[in-house]
Amino acid sequence: MERKDIVLVGAGRVATSLSLALVKAGHRVCQVYSRTEKSAKALAERLTADYTTSIDALVKDADIYIIALTDTALSSLARQITRGREERLFVHTAGSMSIDTLDCPRRGVFYPMQTFSLERLVDFQHVPVFVEASDDDDLQIIRALASTITDNVFTLSSHDRQYLHLAAVFCCNFSNHCYAIAERMLNEHGVPFSVMWPLIDETAAKSHKMSPLIGQTGPAARDDQEVMRRQERLLADNPAWQQIYQLMSQDIQSMAESSEKSE
Amino acid sequence: MERKDIVLVGAGRVATSLSLALVKAGHRVCQVYSRTEKSAKALAERLTADYTTSIDALVKDADIYIIALTDTALSSLARQITRGREERLFVHTAGSMSIDTLDCPRRGVFYPMQTFSLERLVDFQHVPVFVEASDDDDLQIIRALASTITDNVFTLSSHDRQYLHLAAVFCCNFSNHCYAIAERMLNEHGVPFSVMWPLIDETAAKSHKMSPLIGQTGPAARDDQEVMRRQERLLADNPAWQQIYQLMSQDIQSMAESSEKSE
Repeated sequence: MERKDIVLVGAGRVATSLSLALVKAGHRVCQVYSRTEKSAKALAERLTADYTTSIDALVKDADIYIIALTDTALSSLARQITRGREERLFVHTAGSMSIDTLDCPRRGVFYPMQTFSLERLVDFQHVPVFVEASDDDDLQIIRALASTITDNVFTLSSHDRQYLHLAAVFCCNFSNHCYAIAERMLNEHGVPFSVMWPLIDETAAKSHKMSPLIGQTGPAARDDQEVMRRQERLLADNPAWQQIYQLMSQDIQSMAESSEKSE
Repeated sequence: MERKDIVLVGAGRVATSLSLALVKAGHRVCQVYSRTEKSAKALAERLTADYTTSIDALVKDADIYIIALTDTALSSLARQITRGREERLFVHTAGSMSIDTLDCPRRGVFYPMQTFSLERLVDFQHVPVFVEASDDDDLQIIRALASTITDNVFTLSSHDRQYLHLAAVFCCNFSNHCYAIAERMLNEHGVPFSVMWPLIDETAAKSHKMSPLIGQTGPAARDDQEVMRRQERLLADNPAWQQIYQLMSQDIQSMAESSEKSE
């Protein structure tokens, strides 16, 4: 596809990773907006772009406006961002937000499903990007743009994307929280968290090779009541972790049972 | 170290992965025990070992007896396995069980912390093995044996190993259950689970580079109440998942707060 002129609204983790990938693919980010001058300027410099801290100063003639703000900022600023630029194409990057959060005629979604950090640049090549648009022509433009940075482009409705985003919260944020709990537990007993890396990596790698439901191991999967009671007692000082332990163990067992029944 | 003659009590996932690694490292498994003849025979053939289904027929002169049974079988069979072989060294592989589950004079623990499947052979080289022994000479033997198959050997007491095993349940079984929930959720909306792989892999990889507590992202980490309320409503049909969602989200927030306070 030909080079696109892009305005980037936002300068956070998603905006940074995504815009660097777009520029690397040959597109031009002409302008970066952030409420915070420092963030706008820092990212604009990396992209050789202009920057602004005023929404009213956004240029009016870009090919695509990518809004990568928090959900709350997106909701409250959407109308102001699109106003006066009604013929332009706007997309947002928010996994859990409807396409209709934007109320301009040419609107879409460009959701890269990944966990981004400012400290850690993600290779975009295999990041799944979920797209949606208000009409077919714009869908083709958005799909083509996504295809310049990743080989994983999916069209998905706002309705189904809600569940996708929720699934991502489980796969990423909640599994990461399990790591965080383990880290604190180990630190309290003088064991470095790094001992967990091979286990964490194998658990992740295994999920590519077999269904996580089938690949499950551990006390709950083998219904080892004695170990489970003992481990619950070890958590007596932390009622939240104890409850998480009980709920997860019960649910491991009830999902295994329901899948046996359906076989 | 010189080649050890090993008796393997058990023929399940841990026994299989561990014994294959030991044989590859040049040791000899002379005998495999399993209650089930089929399992004993199958593994013995892979190891060019003898096999038996009778504990009383275990040879009496091996260098090390490795007991890789379920916790329940270990508890109930330990005395029978060690009886009449009091001068020999026995170790078990059960992460959550005390060294004193064995009541023979020369006893130890050899806990390889990994998630094992029969379908998926694990490369042992970086698997952390946690060891313990009733005296220093045997500790050196067990450490040396472990060092022939992995570069990650740690001495850890039974007391601290309980917490290690519990941390492993969180890192492995519970994060895997988060994947399993996501898989079912996606299947219900026609999205293949494979779209989650880059996210799962990045979440795992990131835990090597920064503390999972610091690297956390998502609605709970950014205190996005609107998204959290909406996602809870999406889970209305599944009270267990809804409770997991609420507990995990609350705990993500309270752990972030307590770490800010301690800074």
